[in-house]
Amino acid sequence: MRIEELPTPALVVDLDALDANIARMGAAWPGTKLRPHAKAFKSTALAQRLAGAGHTAFCAATVRELAGLAAAGLGTDLLLANECVDRGRLKALVDHVPDARVTVAVDSPETIEAAAAAGVREVLVDVDVGMPRCGCRPDDAGRLADLARSAGLGVRGVMGYEGHLMTEDVDQAGKVEEAMAVLLDAHDAVGGDVVSGGGTGTWKKNHWVTELQAGSFTLMDTHYEAAGVGFAKALSLLLTVVSVNGTGGWAAADGGLKALGMDHGNSTIDGATVWYHADEHTVFSMDDGAALPRVGDRVGVWPAHVDPTVSQHEQLWVHQAGEVVDCWPIDLRGW
Amino acid sequence: MRIEELPTPALVVDLDALDANIARMGAAWPGTKLRPHAKAFKSTALAQRLAGAGHTAFCAATVRELAGLAAAGLGTDLLLANECVDRGRLKALVDHVPDARVTVAVDSPETIEAAAAAGVREVLVDVDVGMPRCGCRPDDAGRLADLARSAGLGVRGVMGYEGHLMTEDVDQAGKVEEAMAVLLDAHDAVGGDVVSGGGTGTWKKNHWVTELQAGSFTLMDTHYEAAGVGFAKALSLLLTVVSVNGTGGWAAADGGLKALGMDHGNSTIDGATVWYHADEHTVFSMDDGAALPRVGDRVGVWPAHVDPTVSQHEQLWVHQAGEVVDCWPIDLRGW
Repeated sequence: MRIEELPTPALVVDLDALDANIARMGAAWPGTKLRPHAKAFKSTALAQRLAGAGHTAFCAATVRELAGLAAAGLGTDLLLANECVDRGRLKALVDHVPDARVTVAVDSPETIEAAAAAGVREVLVDVDVGMPRCGCRPDDAGRLADLARSAGLGVRGVMGYEGHLMTEDVDQAGKVEEAMAVLLDAHDAVGGDVVSGGGTGTWKKNHWVTELQAGSFTLMDTHYEAAGVGFAKALSLLLTVVSVNGTGGWAAADGGLKALGMDHGNSTIDGATVWYHADEHTVFSMDDGAALPRVGDRVGVWPAHVDPTVSQHEQLWVHQAGEVVDCWPIDLRGW
Repeated sequence: MRIEELPTPALVVDLDALDANIARMGAAWPGTKLRPHAKAFKSTALAQRLAGAGHTAFCAATVRELAGLAAAGLGTDLLLANECVDRGRLKALVDHVPDARVTVAVDSPETIEAAAAAGVREVLVDVDVGMPRCGCRPDDAGRLADLARSAGLGVRGVMGYEGHLMTEDVDQAGKVEEAMAVLLDAHDAVGGDVVSGGGTGTWKKNHWVTELQAGSFTLMDTHYEAAGVGFAKALSLLLTVVSVNGTGGWAAADGGLKALGMDHGNSTIDGATVWYHADEHTVFSMDDGAALPRVGDRVGVWPAHVDPTVSQHEQLWVHQAGEVVDCWPIDLRGW
């Protein structure tokens, strides 16, 4: 089957581009030096492809993502790179996948207590390295590590996400070094052998972590492309043109706000200008006097932000040069 | 169970506010003069509540929404208020719910051909009344009606969505009148007894349609609230605070871009300022020197746009004064 025959809206993945992205990242961060972030792609089938390339340690943002990875046999070394105080959910995870190695990020007495009560065995101390979100004060990391150990938890090391620097264009290298200096100081106080951090935007600039947390590099989006991170866009949204207004000079295709993450603005179409997205439409005009498409034509849309695009779909249609070769369920959606 | 006991992120519906919204709309647009738009809430259980209030004719934006409504016994009068050229999907709909009355919007020879080939029996001619999206040229409506009739389709009338005027604040009434004058002219050329249009934003200003297409009024959002449409916000996203930074003055809760439609900007929290949403976080500070919440506290977030918020969730938790009284699956998601 050709991708043109798929019902739309359809999220399609260019397998060769994906594999090239994985190979490129793997050359710099081989094996478990890369900890792929499942939140970006939410598919155990895509995770299996990463594991096949040697990247067998994963991180995720939700307990459900971790549980799904473990159930798919990918539980060698799973990190919840996020805080959680839902003991019931954590306990269900640990109880259901007793053979999996599960590590959880903690940044407060409450998150330590929740992990210990749930039967989690290992943690990383999450440190605020400059982005206002989660992470303890750097000078509090040692105290929290002691607290965790006294609660019976193994402390594997630290984690710190320099998310505010992912698309920084003024002295990114210097700012990443400063942020990681904070993390390494905290690591001195915490101990353990793991320093986890980074992302697709800093894969070439972060020389201090022992493992890189990155997921977007696999499928990519226009936001990271504009930042010049050096991976190819492997994900697009295939739509069908359902209405054409020759007088007004626009066309409307059959997918929009419910199929695309919108926090990075509109998605793009090669050779066209997107006017706006509505719930189930993308309205666009053609550039440089090119002819409008016809009703029934297909059009490919490049998402602006991969993570909240993927999470709105049920499957990824995998193709090579337009020929559909697989269908991967987006089986890690929801909470 | 109290809503505070729900696992988060949880989309919760204030049943009393919802019922008041339905009653208020029903007083102005009783029975089938209102054609509730299922795209806003994507739940057959919520649709049943509308049907119970006498609103038994629905419209929707996707074939799957229509199929789900029909399967739930709500097939008395279903309108696909959108263009579709997917004959296979249209045919499956018609074949699976032979007892349902299914009407489809058409605005081109291609959409008419698809409807006829799929076995659809009735159509509305969709007319462009000023918003660049779907709809034929007004002066082409009569020709398309003739074409539809010659293809064996019953033509019930016209539809025209003045979506560009939903939150218009300069002479909304006059502009709606102008847009509807265009639709009524087209109706003269088309015939039939249906003039379908309008929405939550024009429910008090559109005096020309025979039936109002509105869905957002049920659950509401901050965007429509700011426009002063006169319904109460019945939908909120319940989150758990997972990290608090007393030094920096912010807190992070456990839901974000994957739980909220973002095209109308950030969501809001009463008494707080939302700094930003990340994939699985909402970061905020408190207003007027109020104390930050504690880790484990719950916080309610008001979505900015109801439709692409609901579509990201699996269920609506229904409550009265905080007591959970029902759980409605969001069973019309996807395509």
